[in-house]
Amino acid sequence: MDIEVLAVGGYNEFGRNMTAVRCGKEIVIIDMGIRLDSLMMHPDIEMENTHSLDLIEMGVIPDDTVMNQIEGTVKAIVLSHGHLDHLGAVPKLAHRYNAPIIGTPYTIELVRQQIEGEKKFGVNNKLYPLKYSQRYTISNTLSLELVRTQHSIIDTATVVLYTPKGAIVYALDFKLDRNPVLGEPPDFAKFRKIGKEGVLCLITESTNVNKKGRCPSEQLAKNMVRDVMTSYEDDKNALIVSTFASHIARVKTIAECAHEIGRKPLLLGRSMERYCSTAEQMKYVRFPDTTSIFGNRRVVERTLRRIIKGPRDEYVPIVTGHQGEPGSILTRMAQKDTPYRIEKGDKIMISAQLIPNDMNRAQRYRMFTMLSQQGGRIFDELHVSGHAYCEDHYEFLNMLNPQFVIAAHGGVNLTSEYLNLATDCGYTLNKDFFLMANGQRQKLA
Amino acid sequence: MDIEVLAVGGYNEFGRNMTAVRCGKEIVIIDMGIRLDSLMMHPDIEMENTHSLDLIEMGVIPDDTVMNQIEGTVKAIVLSHGHLDHLGAVPKLAHRYNAPIIGTPYTIELVRQQIEGEKKFGVNNKLYPLKYSQRYTISNTLSLELVRTQHSIIDTATVVLYTPKGAIVYALDFKLDRNPVLGEPPDFAKFRKIGKEGVLCLITESTNVNKKGRCPSEQLAKNMVRDVMTSYEDDKNALIVSTFASHIARVKTIAECAHEIGRKPLLLGRSMERYCSTAEQMKYVRFPDTTSIFGNRRVVERTLRRIIKGPRDEYVPIVTGHQGEPGSILTRMAQKDTPYRIEKGDKIMISAQLIPNDMNRAQRYRMFTMLSQQGGRIFDELHVSGHAYCEDHYEFLNMLNPQFVIAAHGGVNLTSEYLNLATDCGYTLNKDFFLMANGQRQKLA
Amino acid sequence: MDIEVLAVGGYNEFGRNMTAVRCGKEIVIIDMGIRLDSLMMHPDIEMENTHSLDLIEMGVIPDDTVMNQIEGTVKAIVLSHGHLDHLGAVPKLAHRYNAPIIGTPYTIELVRQQIEGEKKFGVNNKLYPLKYSQRYTISNTLSLELVRTQHSIIDTATVVLYTPKGAIVYALDFKLDRNPVLGEPPDFAKFRKIGKEGVLCLITESTNVNKKGRCPSEQLAKNMVRDVMTSYEDDKNALIVSTFASHIARVKTIAECAHEIGRKPLLLGRSMERYCSTAEQMKYVRFPDTTSIFGNRRVVERTLRRIIKGPRDEYVPIVTGHQGEPGSILTRMAQKDTPYRIEKGDKIMISAQLIPNDMNRAQRYRMFTMLSQQGGRIFDELHVSGHAYCEDHYEFLNMLNPQFVIAAHGGVNLTSEYLNLATDCGYTLNKDFFLMANGQRQKLA
Amino acid sequence: MDIEVLAVGGYNEFGRNMTAVRCGKEIVIIDMGIRLDSLMMHPDIEMENTHSLDLIEMGVIPDDTVMNQIEGTVKAIVLSHGHLDHLGAVPKLAHRYNAPIIGTPYTIELVRQQIEGEKKFGVNNKLYPLKYSQRYTISNTLSLELVRTQHSIIDTATVVLYTPKGAIVYALDFKLDRNPVLGEPPDFAKFRKIGKEGVLCLITESTNVNKKGRCPSEQLAKNMVRDVMTSYEDDKNALIVSTFASHIARVKTIAECAHEIGRKPLLLGRSMERYCSTAEQMKYVRFPDTTSIFGNRRVVERTLRRIIKGPRDEYVPIVTGHQGEPGSILTRMAQKDTPYRIEKGDKIMISAQLIPNDMNRAQRYRMFTMLSQQGGRIFDELHVSGHAYCEDHYEFLNMLNPQFVIAAHGGVNLTSEYLNLATDCGYTLNKDFFLMANGQRQKLA
Repeated sequence: MDIEVLAVGGYNEFGRNMTAVRCGKEIVIIDMGIRLDSLMMHPDIEMENTHSLDLIEMGVIPDDTVMNQIEGTVKAIVLSHGHLDHLGAVPKLAHRYNAPIIGTPYTIELVRQQIEGEKKFGVNNKLYPLKYSQRYTISNTLSLELVRTQHSIIDTATVVLYTPKGAIVYALDFKLDRNPVLGEPPDFAKFRKIGKEGVLCLITESTNVNKKGRCPSEQLAKNMVRDVMTSYEDDKNALIVSTFASHIARVKTIAECAHEIGRKPLLLGRSMERYCSTAEQMKYVRFPDTTSIFGNRRVVERTLRRIIKGPRDEYVPIVTGHQGEPGSILTRMAQKDTPYRIEKGDKIMISAQLIPNDMNRAQRYRMFTMLSQQGGRIFDELHVSGHAYCEDHYEFLNMLNPQFVIAAHGGVNLTSEYLNLATDCGYTLNKDFFLMANGQRQKLA
Repeated sequence: MDIEVLAVGGYNEFGRNMTAVRCGKEIVIIDMGIRLDSLMMHPDIEMENTHSLDLIEMGVIPDDTVMNQIEGTVKAIVLSHGHLDHLGAVPKLAHRYNAPIIGTPYTIELVRQQIEGEKKFGVNNKLYPLKYSQRYTISNTLSLELVRTQHSIIDTATVVLYTPKGAIVYALDFKLDRNPVLGEPPDFAKFRKIGKEGVLCLITESTNVNKKGRCPSEQLAKNMVRDVMTSYEDDKNALIVSTFASHIARVKTIAECAHEIGRKPLLLGRSMERYCSTAEQMKYVRFPDTTSIFGNRRVVERTLRRIIKGPRDEYVPIVTGHQGEPGSILTRMAQKDTPYRIEKGDKIMISAQLIPNDMNRAQRYRMFTMLSQQGGRIFDELHVSGHAYCEDHYEFLNMLNPQFVIAAHGGVNLTSEYLNLATDCGYTLNKDFFLMANGQRQKLA
Repeated sequence: MDIEVLAVGGYNEFGRNMTAVRCGKEIVIIDMGIRLDSLMMHPDIEMENTHSLDLIEMGVIPDDTVMNQIEGTVKAIVLSHGHLDHLGAVPKLAHRYNAPIIGTPYTIELVRQQIEGEKKFGVNNKLYPLKYSQRYTISNTLSLELVRTQHSIIDTATVVLYTPKGAIVYALDFKLDRNPVLGEPPDFAKFRKIGKEGVLCLITESTNVNKKGRCPSEQLAKNMVRDVMTSYEDDKNALIVSTFASHIARVKTIAECAHEIGRKPLLLGRSMERYCSTAEQMKYVRFPDTTSIFGNRRVVERTLRRIIKGPRDEYVPIVTGHQGEPGSILTRMAQKDTPYRIEKGDKIMISAQLIPNDMNRAQRYRMFTMLSQQGGRIFDELHVSGHAYCEDHYEFLNMLNPQFVIAAHGGVNLTSEYLNLATDCGYTLNKDFFLMANGQRQKLA
Repeated sequence: MDIEVLAVGGYNEFGRNMTAVRCGKEIVIIDMGIRLDSLMMHPDIEMENTHSLDLIEMGVIPDDTVMNQIEGTVKAIVLSHGHLDHLGAVPKLAHRYNAPIIGTPYTIELVRQQIEGEKKFGVNNKLYPLKYSQRYTISNTLSLELVRTQHSIIDTATVVLYTPKGAIVYALDFKLDRNPVLGEPPDFAKFRKIGKEGVLCLITESTNVNKKGRCPSEQLAKNMVRDVMTSYEDDKNALIVSTFASHIARVKTIAECAHEIGRKPLLLGRSMERYCSTAEQMKYVRFPDTTSIFGNRRVVERTLRRIIKGPRDEYVPIVTGHQGEPGSILTRMAQKDTPYRIEKGDKIMISAQLIPNDMNRAQRYRMFTMLSQQGGRIFDELHVSGHAYCEDHYEFLNMLNPQFVIAAHGGVNLTSEYLNLATDCGYTLNKDFFLMANGQRQKLA
């Protein structure tokens, strides 16, 4: 059986991830994401009303026309986790393939909501939630498993495709967190077992491979947030926190710290509601009893109007807007576009890092300036990354001991950073270590 | 006679420059500028319709309420040169003072046009053009001279106020260009003479004081631009150049290079017309005969519609938009918002540096990305600065040998960079070298 | 009574801190430090054999000749903490003053050892250990207190000089750590009391004032170190850690983590012995029972020769050399200048940040490259700072509410970063907020 | 005939360039360079006394053991130009191959001197100077030409190997300077002809491919240097200039400017003598008649002792040491290790850029600090690069239109920067555009 990997999206840029693996006549697609910063270039585009071909041209979704080059049948679309750069293009592309969409339960629920919001295409692929460690049989030669790992969203999986020539392991995105705040640590026993049984190819993210050491545990972010939130003993000022709406563990930490200092957590914003309510309903998380969640814009406005009248230390609004995104709640607060008013000494905490592109840099700068001018005190980077660092990759690579390695998640200028590590571990460029570009194929067996 | 300097604006930030000097009961104001990046924070503000007090609160114009603290009569408002951060607030503030506005002829013509565009206030101060080296008598103890210097706009002056205690020299902004492309080099003989006769205080810009060596001559920018523009021997692609509309010497260089390679210079954009036509009518510059200038938006559109039909190598559009400003011609070209179309291999040359703030960085990034996606080839930084470097300051300071030095043009984090140089030249912080903040007064005599 | 502050050293540069306060005819000197990177410029200089005047010329110790300008008698030399940039010049300068040297017990013990090592001068000033919260009476108008604070060395104090015009608070260096690993949190109650009673002047460090938010607690560093050190479940490779020898809390953390994973802590290096043995003997810290400490170079060599023969996972060497200092143990290991040998997979953890100057950058780069070439895996920045961030300063300033503020600890380019914060809190440059330069005096009352 | 390219050195790092091309049974080696910064890691190594195998292990010279993998006979060793990273390993490696060494006359003369200095190996390969545009016949199927180009050393060639399957063009290093200061512009007519006849493969440097626009002409550096050197009208201070000893055009410019201001050029230093005297004797350059050149260390000392007694404006010493290299003349001047003494107001001009690695950064910082402390005024970066920028590469690639492109001159993290450009021009990664690593082979036909 001949096997090849097809780099569809995310190999020339950061975002719009999509990879296909062909084993004989059977094809498995992994991930169908969007590229958010291409979307930011076109502030007037409404994604849900735009056609795939236009979005491909703008570089927002993967250019899957290359799929026509290969012969075979798509048997499954697998999703590694719930971030938009991994599943956001499903409503635009999945209907072209007559195949079920497989992911962990939370991921499947998120993609279900995505599909519902789509206005241009009808996506009727079967949605198939697959729990960690269960096998999904694709055919009599191929099967699939979602192995437990950690990242900055719950229910993230490392996708493992078992083939007659060995496993193909797709590790976008992951961190080897031994002390997670939500969920269990990665399933090291399973990874070691897979490594021993034989890995044909590891397709791995490379985001932080040039960072020395290990990625700090989410526990560290918890300590950071708690250290600051609980340090104002008898402060009557407001305290507002912004973080990634999809980072349930972080939202939990913040809500609990709010509770600890006697304030009620108030989750505000459409995406905050989507990710957090879903997680709570599915029992992945339990927020403190005093927590409220409001997503609808009008309800958010009404809530802010109400709380601004009470004591400033009654609630902790947990809001979207950490990147200064136009239209997000924190940005609108900064612009005085909500009923809320920042006062001298109010604390605004950003539990996120800057997503480093010039657009975000400008928007954050503008937002921070406006908040400061109103007397707000800014706390930034109460955060740790969700992506493995160099020594995590070193450990993972030694654990799996794959025959081939493909570095993914970014253009070659980024993925090439993995080469040093691969060389240290005995791999050779273009022989058993590959850098790929969108639209390119790499034969493995 | 007691003399003091009042830091009104531009001492806490980059922009909105305004300084007052009180000698006994007589006050001279130097510069009344705006801060452009504060304006950028409020994209919806129309400056000409906004009241001074609102603009002061936004940090766009100097807060001159501090002028009330001092007793005395404003006898003159002097303008050093025609950039908006030095004269843009005249329409908003000058009417409060019963004093003539004095500047070199080009500067006065520009401020006249500014005042005409103002819709909120009537400014009726007398406009008094003063040529280099002529004396303007303020009273029987005070007189004024505008000494020739160089900068990135024509007719820039170093303002010299002669007092009984020695001269007060206001050198914002300048460069010691011995080989200028337009105009004469700075009047070194005069500066040496003033130095010998005695300088009480030098108020100096400090923008590039942390750059080693000397600021390169504008001749160098000319060579850079020419080197690139004339290097495409039989290219049929379009060539579009963007530069500062107020940088007449640079526009001249570009127009002449266009002429040299057999293409017609086409100056497009409202500000391009304002600065360049004015300069040409006042005989400061002569562009090649083949040059056209169009400012009115509708005419610009019509012109672009016409030239896009002809051969791409007939014209060189010289346009605004080097910072990616929204609404500028180059930005609109990038967004396909004009009738013009970029084609593969077209050259876009930026004869300017990035004005380093996060807003510009984002806008330029967006514009460059869009131009590149259409096949445009980008040439950046065909430019030299208009601000003195460290060794220019060293020479200037030794030439004038002032009793006191005040570093201006930026917040203390910037102006403090001048301290090293001042220390090398024997000055001492807080004794004869001062860092000031807006609203602060410094007694000199 | 007239009071003035004299900036002797550390106001033009980072290091060689020394400040004097004159109250009437009585003078108190606070700190006498060295500048380490000036010393690095002259690799051949042996400090203990060099004369003060030469060291002053090289910029290594403060130029205290300015002390001659003021009339009065030095009554006390107070030391804030045990770092060399605060007490390293005592052996070179203290003998010129007929006054006791006062500091917390650990600081005094360190300065005693410093004085013993001096070969050029005999320093016979009385050494006076003063515990936190005890008063030292200087005269009938002046008294002194060392208030408990936190920093990156134990027994750090904020120096408070009580004068008839209010307290003078000298806060170099400090962090407001509410969860320290060693010792108690800063004495907030005392600071609040001092603030209420009236502070004439706060002299404050400004190192991290441009960092948003709060400085993370040392507890966070503990978590970082533990997170990594305990994450290698059955690794047989060597694990070597380097940190600041004077950072007793950190060394304790590392030693305890070593113990937790079943390896014996081995503290190696002269300065490691000086700081850690002293702290242990004085009962400030207790290391695990399995800990050994060796300082003498010959003994260190012998120990390394011995342990290299045993299993690699028996010990955790905790060594000097995190900045790649020539001659330090880690640097010599990298150069294969010790009997120890790095093998593939050995872990080298740096629990320190780069002290940002070009010399360190080069030395670290060289050391890391050599370690990597031998197969070592590098972990960097397992560290948090010991200096207050912006919001710590904001809290501290509001707590003390001083009449005047002087920003210290660096040249004006650094201290000027404090101005924004001071302005937010209602202070005005040159009126009640001062930036100073070495050799300058500021009258307070 | 099957053809392959073998990446021997310079594909994992910056430096030690060596590439081999095998056409059937015949092999051509191009370049044999050293890596200077690996050498800097071992300050105690004397290169001329060290064995190849040790130098290979240290990463100083290419690891040519991979040559054993391929069958065939080395027919020629071709050198592109005279820089050490392209020919410095000849004395260590060339004797292993029974083949002549071919290069332009100046390059061959430099390699002859290198070989003479070698103390470990006897290198007896025939040295064959080949002028631009002459053909060298290797066999009845292969021939060779050195095509004129420009770089930062005279007599640089683009190596063209004519094979039955098309030309292989090796363009390390080059710039498309249309206005060079020495020599003729690149032979564009020849490149166009080669492009038309068919290029099988372009092996290209990629140093500056991420810099927008074109690399400025050397004429611009001339203007920069002249602008500064001639701007001190009646200065009596010393003026010292440092530049690359091998950059003959630059040295010429500096010497001529010295002459223009009435000072005698004084070229000092061993490498200054080697490169400049050789160039003058071979009639590549003529320095002003007042020029002297001294290389021997004792003679240099004597000369400095002599000139320090005369007027400071009689000579312009042109010296080595622009990177702060230990032992170079400028570094020794800074350390007061020569009879020369820097005085207040002396000018030190660096006509070079920092070669960006941490070692140089530290050494320069140290040197500049010492020079400044003695009153020297520093002028930096009076320089333009010798490496093509993005648009030069764009032009060159379109001119040659090769079937395959290999980006060289640095690790994959650097060479991958070429991918964007290659993609813009229609190439595809791993199909007709290749990134290689040391020791790897790429089949072309």
